[in-house]
Amino acid sequence: MNLVLLFEEDLVAPSCARLSGRRLAHVREVHRAKIGDVLTVGLLGGRMGRGRVRRLDAEALELDLELDQDVPPKLPLTLVIAVPRPKVLNRVVAAATSLGVARIVLVNAWKVEKAYWASPRMQPGNLREQMLLGLEQAKDTVLPDLRLARLFRPFVEDELPGLVGQGTGVVAHPGTGEAPPKVRAAPITLAIGPEGGWIEAEFQSLLKAGLRPLDLGPRILRTETALAALVGRLF
Amino acid sequence: MNLVLLFEEDLVAPSCARLSGRRLAHVREVHRAKIGDVLTVGLLGGRMGRGRVRRLDAEALELDLELDQDVPPKLPLTLVIAVPRPKVLNRVVAAATSLGVARIVLVNAWKVEKAYWASPRMQPGNLREQMLLGLEQAKDTVLPDLRLARLFRPFVEDELPGLVGQGTGVVAHPGTGEAPPKVRAAPITLAIGPEGGWIEAEFQSLLKAGLRPLDLGPRILRTETALAALVGRLF
Repeated sequence: MNLVLLFEEDLVAPSCARLSGRRLAHVREVHRAKIGDVLTVGLLGGRMGRGRVRRLDAEALELDLELDQDVPPKLPLTLVIAVPRPKVLNRVVAAATSLGVARIVLVNAWKVEKAYWASPRMQPGNLREQMLLGLEQAKDTVLPDLRLARLFRPFVEDELPGLVGQGTGVVAHPGTGEAPPKVRAAPITLAIGPEGGWIEAEFQSLLKAGLRPLDLGPRILRTETALAALVGRLF
Repeated sequence: MNLVLLFEEDLVAPSCARLSGRRLAHVREVHRAKIGDVLTVGLLGGRMGRGRVRRLDAEALELDLELDQDVPPKLPLTLVIAVPRPKVLNRVVAAATSLGVARIVLVNAWKVEKAYWASPRMQPGNLREQMLLGLEQAKDTVLPDLRLARLFRPFVEDELPGLVGQGTGVVAHPGTGEAPPKVRAAPITLAIGPEGGWIEAEFQSLLKAGLRPLDLGPRILRTETALAALVGRLF
């Protein structure tokens, strides 16, 4: 937790916050803060700055706030990603958030097992929790725009072309031998398939929606590793 | 496991392997292979190719081998990384291996807790196991060259300049505002600090050893996310 994320309901006065629960425990046990210490804080959806510890005990952490810093800008990037295995989902959502992805679309695909959609980890509460962890990691306060597209075809045919717009769309797909496009107008839309990849029909639909293939090479990477490598390459 | 990694001792004949244990269980339970199925296989340190299942039961998996493919080349990259927390170590070593890092140096740093070095995860057996998992993930057979540098100064002052050689050295360090060098002679040496970063004296030593600073921007990324993003950016 590189930033203590504050919510409106934590504010007991315009420049004072009172926290309990997970954040209190973390500041006590991991940060081992003391009265007078200054922590990096940010208000969800708002500015960040410093919070000076004025009270810290088993019940509450109280901070005097000075929120005078802008948050880092988001990458102009929409990530369209096939729903990963539940075990991988949390890491992917948190990593995408920490990398600064502006919009995340979790989309269905042929090789996405139905059970993945039914996983408790796909519940809005958990997805939000993972994004909050990503914000705390990266020192950011603005949640990505997250949406679920349970039907591949309507999403790809009707909505994806509009998302790509005048920007650049790429779909990671092995074996095409394509390097990343040299000229990349923002925004960028990046599609990452499930383990085992997009099936050919899906790949063709993505091309038709305006995405260009991008070959990451012969190595098969875990989803979150591929995501970070692609973001590093494209930005 | 995108590739079933074989060891010399698995070979019961020049083109037949017999496996048991973890790999047998994985092929039975995850791949759900049947007699006659063809799996992607590779011989540790050697070539890769296909293995046709000739026997598969509770006791053994037997494969007829055809090893006629070269493995993907390594990246000409030496990763010098401060020993991460044990929880993070496994993921970093497996990810670096899957990304194709040729050499990994786990180095001490001021902010590396002594306990990290004493962790069972730092034992050679575990580090090798994580590299094997990375090879199986990426479809590779060649272990990175892994070494431990328990003393920061002797390593950085006496050995690091030789590793950088005529190539390019970069050290990830926040707040310097430096973009990655435009011209990057291979090999590349990339230094990644501990959580909390290099202390100033370490940073100066790394610069003196020939590394140039590289600023990843205001976002603080988890070590394995930063690693993949840097590899994507540099290659």
